[in-house]
Amino acid sequence: MSLQSELLTTAKQAQKAARFLSVVSTEEKNKAIKTMAKELLKHSKAIIAANKLDVQSAKKEKRNSAFIDRLSLDLSGIKKMSDDLIAVADLADPVSEVIKTWQRPNGLVLSKVRVPLGVIGIIYESRPNVTSDCAGLCLKTGNAVILRGGKESIHSNQAIYKVISLALRKTGFPQGCISLIQTTDRQAVNELLKLNDYIDLIIPRGGESLIRGVVENSLIPVIKHYKGICHIYVDKYADFAMAQAVAFNAKVQRPSTCNAMECLLVHADIALDFLPEMVKHLRKSGVEIRGCAKTAKLIPGIKLASNQDYATEYLDLILSVKIVSSLKQAVDHIAKYGSKHSEAIITENLRNGTSFLKSVDAACVYLNASTRFTDGNQFGLGAEIGVSTDKLHARGPMGLVELTTYKYVIIGNGQIRT
Amino acid sequence: MSLQSELLTTAKQAQKAARFLSVVSTEEKNKAIKTMAKELLKHSKAIIAANKLDVQSAKKEKRNSAFIDRLSLDLSGIKKMSDDLIAVADLADPVSEVIKTWQRPNGLVLSKVRVPLGVIGIIYESRPNVTSDCAGLCLKTGNAVILRGGKESIHSNQAIYKVISLALRKTGFPQGCISLIQTTDRQAVNELLKLNDYIDLIIPRGGESLIRGVVENSLIPVIKHYKGICHIYVDKYADFAMAQAVAFNAKVQRPSTCNAMECLLVHADIALDFLPEMVKHLRKSGVEIRGCAKTAKLIPGIKLASNQDYATEYLDLILSVKIVSSLKQAVDHIAKYGSKHSEAIITENLRNGTSFLKSVDAACVYLNASTRFTDGNQFGLGAEIGVSTDKLHARGPMGLVELTTYKYVIIGNGQIRT
Repeated sequence: MSLQSELLTTAKQAQKAARFLSVVSTEEKNKAIKTMAKELLKHSKAIIAANKLDVQSAKKEKRNSAFIDRLSLDLSGIKKMSDDLIAVADLADPVSEVIKTWQRPNGLVLSKVRVPLGVIGIIYESRPNVTSDCAGLCLKTGNAVILRGGKESIHSNQAIYKVISLALRKTGFPQGCISLIQTTDRQAVNELLKLNDYIDLIIPRGGESLIRGVVENSLIPVIKHYKGICHIYVDKYADFAMAQAVAFNAKVQRPSTCNAMECLLVHADIALDFLPEMVKHLRKSGVEIRGCAKTAKLIPGIKLASNQDYATEYLDLILSVKIVSSLKQAVDHIAKYGSKHSEAIITENLRNGTSFLKSVDAACVYLNASTRFTDGNQFGLGAEIGVSTDKLHARGPMGLVELTTYKYVIIGNGQIRT
Repeated sequence: MSLQSELLTTAKQAQKAARFLSVVSTEEKNKAIKTMAKELLKHSKAIIAANKLDVQSAKKEKRNSAFIDRLSLDLSGIKKMSDDLIAVADLADPVSEVIKTWQRPNGLVLSKVRVPLGVIGIIYESRPNVTSDCAGLCLKTGNAVILRGGKESIHSNQAIYKVISLALRKTGFPQGCISLIQTTDRQAVNELLKLNDYIDLIIPRGGESLIRGVVENSLIPVIKHYKGICHIYVDKYADFAMAQAVAFNAKVQRPSTCNAMECLLVHADIALDFLPEMVKHLRKSGVEIRGCAKTAKLIPGIKLASNQDYATEYLDLILSVKIVSSLKQAVDHIAKYGSKHSEAIITENLRNGTSFLKSVDAACVYLNASTRFTDGNQFGLGAEIGVSTDKLHARGPMGLVELTTYKYVIIGNGQIRT
């Protein structure tokens, strides 16, 4: 069978399974997810053995330690995957929720009812836990899912999928509910992205180049997350101790995440009092500072930040700094360089705080808190399939609700249009 | 200036205007919209004169009368455009609505707040009233809009745009809030669809080929409406009089609309009692029947329906008919041939009704009412920018709310992530 017809078969089976899933009860879905969780533990040895093959290849290819760390699975890693599945099973099912209901003068009763999206394609890179995470989240929301992991974790993904597949069989769910693309052929992604008659949504998870490739080639709607260039603006009326603690947290606690701060904006009136102390604190934790000319005057010896720096998601212990002369200049800088992810202001002035929250266009805008909170669990959504920096359908952390759409259900007693 | 750089300038101005619009008060937006309404009436002569040029060209090109009808504007047409603008100004503003708010154990207060989408591109065909409709709906929701009408109505659109532009000036709104692409060069659409750094959403309004072209070339998310192949299923337990009235209404009242019925499904057990009478009634109004083999046995002399017929949106006084042996067969037929637009069941049996509503995947599912109600005004949304057969972001009739997105506003008192 050609690659094209193989993918078409997979997509058709997924669409058929999606029709099955759309009317399955919450109890049955939960049972399947919990069975997956149990089977993962039962087959942990086989998964770890398969994972070893991937880790060996990665080492052979001289991948860096962060990469190998993301790829590696041990018993505690599998335990976590299993626990996460149980947590998803225990969450409330958003499907069938009546979002709104109203009656028209002619007697028609309209309801907006939450329903699954249909078939979701997930294109991801090396983390093998994404395989079980996405399988659980999609099944819970009544969506069929087609998984396409990176070639670096193919053995791990196949081993995990084998277990998931077994759990589906044991609980009477069609195999099409969860599919894993078995080939590592890169062309498979491009072929998949053309199947817009069968797949309703693509979620790419990975680096910017992967995502750009998906967007450029997809006929299917894509919800994505390019990058997080998050700012903290320390206003003239900031509480300095709070500003220092929050900015430090946003930069240092986990610099490799998309919600970490990449640029610190400081009002000129307080720069002299605030910035040298802040920088000292950051440098103690190994943060490299790249500042504007005004910053360099206050803190000699730092590297000057270029426009390119302000446009860069470092994901590392590096920080751009810019001294601004007004709230407006801070907001303009964020409009120019921000990635519409998470932006924060630190201020005790209500007017400035409100103005920032209103005029900054981002998925999440913060007053007096760290940008690091942009996360499904931290928001209390229970779990997330990712974060969206898009504006359509879902914005910010995407939980179960964001994996659904709605339909209008209209009940009448013979109404006709006149 | 090249076409490319001209469009880029337009898009950049729109993005800048969108930032302006995102913080403008409801009162100011309403004032601008009402000024547009007033100026349209004041300049009706100039608009009608411009429209005459378009109508003359259309006649020269031997366009059919339906086309010329859609294109033509007289004083009452302009009055309607003006009234529609005032109606939009009088609707509630969805922007700034707090959709949901909650507190986390660490004291963070999260709110999901409705905000404008940003910049919306509308690509449409010949109806010149779309120019003022979309301008009003987008301005009301705080979105900048880039309008690209068909070349057939370029003179009308330019005349209407001139008036809109004057109203913006009179009320202190930047011109970038509403732009009209002045060239009729087809390449302009393709260039526009690449400007995903500036435009947040594309809504194509027109025939299927226009929409397919947009989807294939767009890097910007598209919300669309391909076609409406709507079914009415007359169940075994239907009230015959109701079924006949509803089916007749859905086919005959306005056959050229996307929510008109294109295919009638009838349960085999009642076909003999119901169908001949129904067909007689439809034929009296000039409806051509194309039926399955079983239908042909009941009603001799009709044309046999091909698979192609079942997949066709006639938009005309033609109806496909199929006799099915079960509710399941009806639902399967709809899953295969439906366009996920509007689907109805006529039955007095609650179990069958509920099963149909649950298992049919469409934007709007009806029990005992005509599919002709799928419309923003009929739903009570006040106005609509179109109907979506997509599943992401907006489904079914799109009113003001569907022209917005949300952001998370998080208020803390110094929370950091641990």
